[in-house]
Amino acid sequence: MIKVTVWHENYHDRTDEATQAMYPGGMHNVIASFLKKDEEFEVRTATLDEENCGLPDEILEDTDVLLWWGHAKHDDVPDELAKKVHERVLRGMGIIFLHSAHMSKPFRLTMGTSCTLKWRDNDRERLWTVLPQHPIAKGVDEYIELESEEMYGERFDIPQPDELVFLGWFAGGEVFRSGCTWYKGLGKVFYFQPGHETNPSYHNEQVQKIITNAVRWAAPQVMIEKLDCPHYASLEKKRLENN
Amino acid sequence: MIKVTVWHENYHDRTDEATQAMYPGGMHNVIASFLKKDEEFEVRTATLDEENCGLPDEILEDTDVLLWWGHAKHDDVPDELAKKVHERVLRGMGIIFLHSAHMSKPFRLTMGTSCTLKWRDNDRERLWTVLPQHPIAKGVDEYIELESEEMYGERFDIPQPDELVFLGWFAGGEVFRSGCTWYKGLGKVFYFQPGHETNPSYHNEQVQKIITNAVRWAAPQVMIEKLDCPHYASLEKKRLENN
Amino acid sequence: MIKVTVWHENYHDRTDEATQAMYPGGMHNVIASFLKKDEEFEVRTATLDEENCGLPDEILEDTDVLLWWGHAKHDDVPDELAKKVHERVLRGMGIIFLHSAHMSKPFRLTMGTSCTLKWRDNDRERLWTVLPQHPIAKGVDEYIELESEEMYGERFDIPQPDELVFLGWFAGGEVFRSGCTWYKGLGKVFYFQPGHETNPSYHNEQVQKIITNAVRWAAPQVMIEKLDCPHYASLEKKRLENN
Amino acid sequence: MIKVTVWHENYHDRTDEATQAMYPGGMHNVIASFLKKDEEFEVRTATLDEENCGLPDEILEDTDVLLWWGHAKHDDVPDELAKKVHERVLRGMGIIFLHSAHMSKPFRLTMGTSCTLKWRDNDRERLWTVLPQHPIAKGVDEYIELESEEMYGERFDIPQPDELVFLGWFAGGEVFRSGCTWYKGLGKVFYFQPGHETNPSYHNEQVQKIITNAVRWAAPQVMIEKLDCPHYASLEKKRLENN
Repeated sequence: MIKVTVWHENYHDRTDEATQAMYPGGMHNVIASFLKKDEEFEVRTATLDEENCGLPDEILEDTDVLLWWGHAKHDDVPDELAKKVHERVLRGMGIIFLHSAHMSKPFRLTMGTSCTLKWRDNDRERLWTVLPQHPIAKGVDEYIELESEEMYGERFDIPQPDELVFLGWFAGGEVFRSGCTWYKGLGKVFYFQPGHETNPSYHNEQVQKIITNAVRWAAPQVMIEKLDCPHYASLEKKRLENN
Repeated sequence: MIKVTVWHENYHDRTDEATQAMYPGGMHNVIASFLKKDEEFEVRTATLDEENCGLPDEILEDTDVLLWWGHAKHDDVPDELAKKVHERVLRGMGIIFLHSAHMSKPFRLTMGTSCTLKWRDNDRERLWTVLPQHPIAKGVDEYIELESEEMYGERFDIPQPDELVFLGWFAGGEVFRSGCTWYKGLGKVFYFQPGHETNPSYHNEQVQKIITNAVRWAAPQVMIEKLDCPHYASLEKKRLENN
Repeated sequence: MIKVTVWHENYHDRTDEATQAMYPGGMHNVIASFLKKDEEFEVRTATLDEENCGLPDEILEDTDVLLWWGHAKHDDVPDELAKKVHERVLRGMGIIFLHSAHMSKPFRLTMGTSCTLKWRDNDRERLWTVLPQHPIAKGVDEYIELESEEMYGERFDIPQPDELVFLGWFAGGEVFRSGCTWYKGLGKVFYFQPGHETNPSYHNEQVQKIITNAVRWAAPQVMIEKLDCPHYASLEKKRLENN
Repeated sequence: MIKVTVWHENYHDRTDEATQAMYPGGMHNVIASFLKKDEEFEVRTATLDEENCGLPDEILEDTDVLLWWGHAKHDDVPDELAKKVHERVLRGMGIIFLHSAHMSKPFRLTMGTSCTLKWRDNDRERLWTVLPQHPIAKGVDEYIELESEEMYGERFDIPQPDELVFLGWFAGGEVFRSGCTWYKGLGKVFYFQPGHETNPSYHNEQVQKIITNAVRWAAPQVMIEKLDCPHYASLEKKRLENN
């Protein structure tokens, strides 16, 4: 089983009618819903308004892959929690940053860059698959039409991705590295651009497939307790001593 | 002119006789000394024990390429200063992290990883040039012998480098990605492993050449004032309106 | 099922006693043997001395992952076959190049570089895992001791790998990028350095695990019939016509 | 001085009126013309219709950076010449592949992939700068408008670039990795997509700046005579013998 936690700031979902209409029950539950179709996933949700921002240590330590959606309330995530999430990634947890999570504290800590970009509401996107042989693109079409999505445009201030899986084309004239992976510490990181709160992207089956694939891809292989710099005795000296 | 600031925690140089004997006048001055041979460099030093840790805003903003050496006193660098250095890199400044700076706050912020590794004093290193066509390897031999250097061994917890320029071989049995580059924001970053405070590496002419090359390579090409996410009007809409 | 073909030039195995003693029945059969322990693999062998060099079209087209070992007889592989193998990789087949296959025609065609390196017989290698979170490193130790292996040393003339999974340390003083991956076309490529014909590396359980992992990792996800440059009608024009 | 050779298949320029009107005197001469404005460049042209296809050994060996434009006559370039060009790149020569040279023999040999893509005449392109801190992007705007250019669309079958410098947006709905770099052997390679023979891209000052920058960037740093796999005596053994 892969233990998945869908974290959501859950702000527009409680305050904005358009968001509520688009994602009844909250976007985190919509995402959890389609992830649950994968029988190997054990899916939880967690939201900012819950105690400990939904991520007490026992939940975070029990999570294999974390999905993160935030937008208006990045600053309400305590620095300490952001550091814990980041550190857990370095120790092996997979993490998927969705859409406006590009400016979230954990993403910025993980990238080591500003993660700034250009933006505009209500554009039309065509998402191109650039690396169809990547596990995250499994079963994904040559391109996906998203009739209404927020434009995110270059220059996206990220480190050069280890793998560029999807490129976004916007009708207004911009391009974007919309699906990128990085190894970070022992964890795997995927950033995926579609998913504005008033746009239907998470209802799109191809988008759901991508996120589901990404969870599988990001599942931990190695997980450690502690990050440290051990003193390391000379293997060659030991060898001489043993002979 | 490239404005270079050599920053040094300057601790062992004031407290440890072996360090003083190895780098009379302080390691920062030894490094500044060989950099000054390049007539296009305007070289300053700055140390942790100076006011504002040697890096008040007016110095940091006036620096094109910063070199950073720290080891025992990483924690004495205020978080705020580390963030400023990191942010200045993202806005375009070049930075070269030397040896034990792998655990410095600015390096860890810039990498987004733990930067942990294995270590051992007093080993022997052979530094291999893997990417001789890289500007940082200009004029550098196939390998460099360092009779006495601190062993740093894999796994080095860094993001996959954009370019792997040098690989270290240690007599005790370890390997290390000893010279790595990354684009980070608008800045260029080089990490270079040799340089323990009681070892003579910075007196080695080949090492001096590498660091000099790295300063030239890291010199800023684009420099911005502010990192932000601008709203961006549709270029295609403007186009239609203009026609 | 993953259809695996182990291709071997099978020269030393027929002419050299030391090789025969090390790999009774031929190295290809030893490799096929441990791969067959994975129940999802359907394993065949093919050798240069067979008809069509062991790789008639019907075999090649029926192969998901090809392993390639060659050394003394690279030139006996017809250019046409090398091109077919290369083209099949571009259409999606996975391929694993073992040891001296670094100078094989298919590897050089796939890399687009000379693949030259330094070498010396009968050294001792310690293989370090640099990317433990990579599928190919699953279950692999921090390092593997190979008491006797051929030294391959840098500069290894390969394109910068997409992923550097293993680094080799040699007692004689050299380092080597011993385990590297690349996406090439729709195929996945793994190069793995250990495996000299008179050394016991393919009897090493950790080495067997790496090669088994690599086969799984390289299994095709997308496979196409033909590589071409299609004329592509404007999606936006179609869209306007449909509205 | 950087010795630059602009190679052109020079076919449309001799047979097609639209091309002749767009690039009077031949596209190679137009390109050579703007390159000559850089006083450090010594610029030659060479065309397919000349003796030895314009590239006898003495010219090729005397070239630091080669530009290559071909389209309709890729097959008329002898395999032997393509191999020589490729091999010279591996020995250190810089090379810039322009537009339809994506299907040229030297590019395909150098990439090791099929280099296929989608295409359509007479679209409109907006070329975005993704890596403004790269030497090839020096002085280049945030984006360049190309009113009429051939659409090249993803999936572009190239190895993951070492650096992705420019991304193309096309009005018809496609995206393209339009400016990419690779280290290949000791040479540096830049692919740049604009430049259809009946479109005015090479008259665009920003495009000229990019190509000029690319020539400087690709100038050789290390150049060798021969590619081989030397036997290499143990450095550690020598060391013991010397002590």
